[in-house]
Amino acid sequence: MSKAAFFSLILGFISMSALAQQRPPAISSPNVHADNSITFTYFSRTAREVKLSGEFLKEPVLLTKDTSGIWRVTVPPVTPDIYPYNFTVDGVGVADPNNTQIFANERFKRSIVEVKGDKPLVHSLQNIPHGKVTYHTYSSKTLNTTRQLLVYTPPNFDASGKTKYPVLYLIHGGSDTEETWTKVGRANFIADNLIAQGKAKPMIIVMPYGNVRPAPMADFTKDVVNDIIPFVQANYPTQTDSKGRAVAGFSVGGGQTLNIGFTNTDTFAYICSYAPYTATDEFKKNFTDWTPDADKVNKQLKLFTISVGTEDFLYESVKQNIAMFQEKKIKVEPLIVSGGHTWMNCKLFLANSLQQIFK
Amino acid sequence: MSKAAFFSLILGFISMSALAQQRPPAISSPNVHADNSITFTYFSRTAREVKLSGEFLKEPVLLTKDTSGIWRVTVPPVTPDIYPYNFTVDGVGVADPNNTQIFANERFKRSIVEVKGDKPLVHSLQNIPHGKVTYHTYSSKTLNTTRQLLVYTPPNFDASGKTKYPVLYLIHGGSDTEETWTKVGRANFIADNLIAQGKAKPMIIVMPYGNVRPAPMADFTKDVVNDIIPFVQANYPTQTDSKGRAVAGFSVGGGQTLNIGFTNTDTFAYICSYAPYTATDEFKKNFTDWTPDADKVNKQLKLFTISVGTEDFLYESVKQNIAMFQEKKIKVEPLIVSGGHTWMNCKLFLANSLQQIFK
Repeated sequence: MSKAAFFSLILGFISMSALAQQRPPAISSPNVHADNSITFTYFSRTAREVKLSGEFLKEPVLLTKDTSGIWRVTVPPVTPDIYPYNFTVDGVGVADPNNTQIFANERFKRSIVEVKGDKPLVHSLQNIPHGKVTYHTYSSKTLNTTRQLLVYTPPNFDASGKTKYPVLYLIHGGSDTEETWTKVGRANFIADNLIAQGKAKPMIIVMPYGNVRPAPMADFTKDVVNDIIPFVQANYPTQTDSKGRAVAGFSVGGGQTLNIGFTNTDTFAYICSYAPYTATDEFKKNFTDWTPDADKVNKQLKLFTISVGTEDFLYESVKQNIAMFQEKKIKVEPLIVSGGHTWMNCKLFLANSLQQIFK
Repeated sequence: MSKAAFFSLILGFISMSALAQQRPPAISSPNVHADNSITFTYFSRTAREVKLSGEFLKEPVLLTKDTSGIWRVTVPPVTPDIYPYNFTVDGVGVADPNNTQIFANERFKRSIVEVKGDKPLVHSLQNIPHGKVTYHTYSSKTLNTTRQLLVYTPPNFDASGKTKYPVLYLIHGGSDTEETWTKVGRANFIADNLIAQGKAKPMIIVMPYGNVRPAPMADFTKDVVNDIIPFVQANYPTQTDSKGRAVAGFSVGGGQTLNIGFTNTDTFAYICSYAPYTATDEFKKNFTDWTPDADKVNKQLKLFTISVGTEDFLYESVKQNIAMFQEKKIKVEPLIVSGGHTWMNCKLFLANSLQQIFK
């Protein structure tokens, strides 16, 4: 850290000074107001146009610049939730530089804003017993590299081995990371809340990193089955039959879920696919000319759900997938809700699954 | 996610298309070359000036814009390490929007670049047994809130309770977060490497969140002693005497380390302060007119180090602190190295401490 940067920090602690006047002003963004309206703020003396896009908006809105270079817009009250948003500055999408809540993603530059509302939501941090999330480094023989995965263990987790826990393998969307399900999807708090309410069984949730490029996507299926499951079972007291394992995922991860699940129905008795993206070589290979023994598969699976929102741009594709499974006589429970291809829906889909699996 | 955003992602997977030509170009930044030179790239058609600042540079350097709005600069080969850097765009500091390695900090907008070099460094990810890092949610009675802390456990950690581990409490710098010691400081990999080499004892490292504003800084000392230590001892098999506890920290956290350590010499036998910032009310209260029983304190402490670089802007202040402790007959081991107020030095200080404590 430079001396100037450090003193800028210290000055920020104490007071605005004449020195600080010459620096960019301290910006606070976003600011959620009592009525759930939100003000977004951006600073640039030279930008020509700053737009706000957010999953609480139908269309981007323009920010207005004041004479000091501060751009602002206030959006009307929104439904309490956690929303991704970003700015587009002269045509370039950027995260909100003044918001430390960054959307964990390798491609999109987005931030998240939490509108808490009056009542706790399914993902809200509440004063209840909490599980924990552990960052592991594991060696993938399949991918010949060392990777990271996250493991949620429930409140009052018994590491002694006396209790054997069921395990949900939960996969992020394309270009997300292994942190997206906790940092954006709040999977840990959703599980904490549902377990506290007696609505979900205490379980382990494993959140791997699903991006295996430049390897083909099918190598992720191998990584899960040959590397991740053995790693988890070696390090945690888990149930080791298919009825103690579930796989779920969103978008590209929803497609991976179908691939992983249906090529391993002896391993996973629960398959939960959220707004799956299935225009992939792996999906074509697995499901074109697929002739499953439907009776056998339906006996192996205790639950197979496909969830999607009616405004999801993949809605038609997902409906075709559901029809395909039905045509093959595979028992599928569709969950069709309103809303789009969003992490707001994703959290609802997960909350629904957590109440259905391992029961 | 909007349909356009999603297809931009999918297009990115597959190929550039005519559509993609109209969008901002895909930028890769930073790019570390074989000779350890680094090219930094930024995109803006409308910015007037883009500068690069980095802890591998003495002074900021200008990027040069091409006709398509792509700004670039290549810096000469740098010594392998992990460096913070940022851009200044028309006077506003921004992180590199195309680098997912973000410096975990609540104020500064910076990114990090790893220059790996030919030989593994003390922080390098190597093919050895790895510990894990667990994100806990705990209730702080002192602060009347629910907060997060990170806990590193070493490779082959024995959770059974048969082994009692010593614990290092490790505090970040001002405006850093509880993630900075792992995501920037690589404390977990440093510990893995030194434990694998037999140079450090297997230990637990607790990384709390040191920012307690708007509460006074002294409340963090209370949080550590009254909330965090009991939480850790309830959840991990730890040694519970002072010889099984160390406290260390950097910058503002280095000052907190002195406050926490010297007001609790019956609790911590090891105090390691890195480039401490001590111009705080808490430090003044604790150390002005301080009349310690030096013999007693020197018997309680097995190690007290203060580390600093000669180019650190706090160097003179830290030298005064060292002199103050010496004047009070407190035994202190100064570690004076080259370099500034940086996380590169911070990692070296930690690596040094890990080899000294609990022995």
